[in-house]
Amino acid sequence: MSAGFTVAVDAMGGDKGTGVIVEGVRQVLSARDDANLLLVGDPDEIQKHIGNNPLPKGRTEIVEASEVVNMDDSVAVALRNKKKSSMRIAIDQVKSGRASACVSSGNTSALMAISKFVLKTIPGIDRPAICTTIPALNGHTHMLDLGANVDCSADHLYQFAAMGSILAHAIDDNSRPTVGLLNIGSEDIKGNEQVKEAAELLSDSTLNYVGFVEGNEIYTDRADIVVCDGFVGNVSLKTSEGVANLVSVYLKEEFMRSPMNKLVGLLAKPILRSFGNRIDPRQYNGASLLGLKGVVIKSHGSADAVAFANAINIALLEIANDVPSKISESMNQSHNSVA
Amino acid sequence: MSAGFTVAVDAMGGDKGTGVIVEGVRQVLSARDDANLLLVGDPDEIQKHIGNNPLPKGRTEIVEASEVVNMDDSVAVALRNKKKSSMRIAIDQVKSGRASACVSSGNTSALMAISKFVLKTIPGIDRPAICTTIPALNGHTHMLDLGANVDCSADHLYQFAAMGSILAHAIDDNSRPTVGLLNIGSEDIKGNEQVKEAAELLSDSTLNYVGFVEGNEIYTDRADIVVCDGFVGNVSLKTSEGVANLVSVYLKEEFMRSPMNKLVGLLAKPILRSFGNRIDPRQYNGASLLGLKGVVIKSHGSADAVAFANAINIALLEIANDVPSKISESMNQSHNSVA
Repeated sequence: MSAGFTVAVDAMGGDKGTGVIVEGVRQVLSARDDANLLLVGDPDEIQKHIGNNPLPKGRTEIVEASEVVNMDDSVAVALRNKKKSSMRIAIDQVKSGRASACVSSGNTSALMAISKFVLKTIPGIDRPAICTTIPALNGHTHMLDLGANVDCSADHLYQFAAMGSILAHAIDDNSRPTVGLLNIGSEDIKGNEQVKEAAELLSDSTLNYVGFVEGNEIYTDRADIVVCDGFVGNVSLKTSEGVANLVSVYLKEEFMRSPMNKLVGLLAKPILRSFGNRIDPRQYNGASLLGLKGVVIKSHGSADAVAFANAINIALLEIANDVPSKISESMNQSHNSVA
Repeated sequence: MSAGFTVAVDAMGGDKGTGVIVEGVRQVLSARDDANLLLVGDPDEIQKHIGNNPLPKGRTEIVEASEVVNMDDSVAVALRNKKKSSMRIAIDQVKSGRASACVSSGNTSALMAISKFVLKTIPGIDRPAICTTIPALNGHTHMLDLGANVDCSADHLYQFAAMGSILAHAIDDNSRPTVGLLNIGSEDIKGNEQVKEAAELLSDSTLNYVGFVEGNEIYTDRADIVVCDGFVGNVSLKTSEGVANLVSVYLKEEFMRSPMNKLVGLLAKPILRSFGNRIDPRQYNGASLLGLKGVVIKSHGSADAVAFANAINIALLEIANDVPSKISESMNQSHNSVA
């Protein structure tokens, strides 16, 4: 491999097949020369999609894997019975040091479970969490957890806040990112017990805690990081997808309603495309599994090549900024300060 | 009062003042002749907004109230120290039988607490819930709870499903409304304990249970009623508001980006307005406090006249369909079938 960062890619994960993954890899390779990629999966399938347009030598390698974790495989099956899966072997590359990060569009629960088993959790972190970046007025918001942990204690929420702060610091170059706790009202008396207790922990911490945020404020610049349990985070994120889809269907329907509307729609096409790009979920593809001793990025199951390339770019950013080590250092410090 | 349905309106609640409430009342009175309205509040303030354009005699009455529940009043203050508030006296009108429903844009927690105290909860219902209607592909979805109950047991979720079914049956004329349970995945193994247990209760019930629904499916025709705890429901609803706001800001920005875009924006104006109307939250204003021995409707704090009129219309629909009695009968039946 050439000098630079190496990312292991699960070439068999996701709903769209190996083709979009190879194409995403190609986009990253041509956009930056400091990235090397290991494509993990069925060599014939990968080679078929590479076709007559070879990937740059010395910067890519195919790593054989004879099994695939399916979207409906249980965690137990993925973990115990599929040790030769593309997902497992991609994560193994991080463990062995051949790669510095892994990206997969496969089964989220399996990816989290195998990553925890192979890479281990950073001491001081009870549970890794899933964090993604979402568009907001005047910037973006990092939100976690998005589904790894359905029930969370106040301590867990505090740890999510600490990890999110490190991520935002590292990748946004924001030295004092603000942290908000997702709640159903801004008053102190609102919310469940875990949230109220987490608010106390955060108020007493060195993190830049700004208080409770409500669901609508995720999409504003109220806080750089929004913390919640995985059940709430997952529902909130999927709700957003539902609203965005409804809006896009309604908008199309209105512009198709009459011949006159269609004509205006033609004129408005570049404007609507530019609008669409701003809320395009592909631009935000790539969720970080934070709290592991290694960089693992979950790409959306239905990611296309552009989206998959974005997920690889997030992996590269986290490697370059050494996010796992920074989380580890921060946990050491908070441990020492308590001891 | 004339023949027809009588609704008591809290004329002092909400952020927009008494003017929009009087205007909303005026819209309802002119649109339908079977509605009578009691305006509860400061007579001078109400009279000032009625001005020189009197409301129809025999169909409206001003009921004096000398206090107001503020948006930041605690439940304890609203309940114990403000017995002469417009909110309290509006609810008292339902208790005494002078009105068949109450509508308020005031403090939600206070409205729920006072309603429970004055009207009482229907036997068999442990906790009343807040239910609203939201736009969805091919129709709309009823969702509850939206914030009255932050922690819910499986039994509570089951009761919400039963109440939602009765509401949908009554106001949509849908004899077998489908019920979905909000969860973070469609597989049986996903979710927290309460949700899993509620799924079993619903599967064994006579309700038309269709399984788990994910956040994005709220905005599809997957289920007529979506059930969740109040924390999750509130976050989901507010998240939707946040996304809708972001979309509207982005859309405006794109159509204002250049003189050419502005010109196209002028042409597209009627189309965008028609689109805007479809996602206009005013069309969906009016959340039902279900499970009480009486119809109580919460209007959004920032509701304008159109939105407030919609909330009154929902109250009229629930009175006409006698929703509280139907919930009560259904609870009796399920009690008898268990006994």
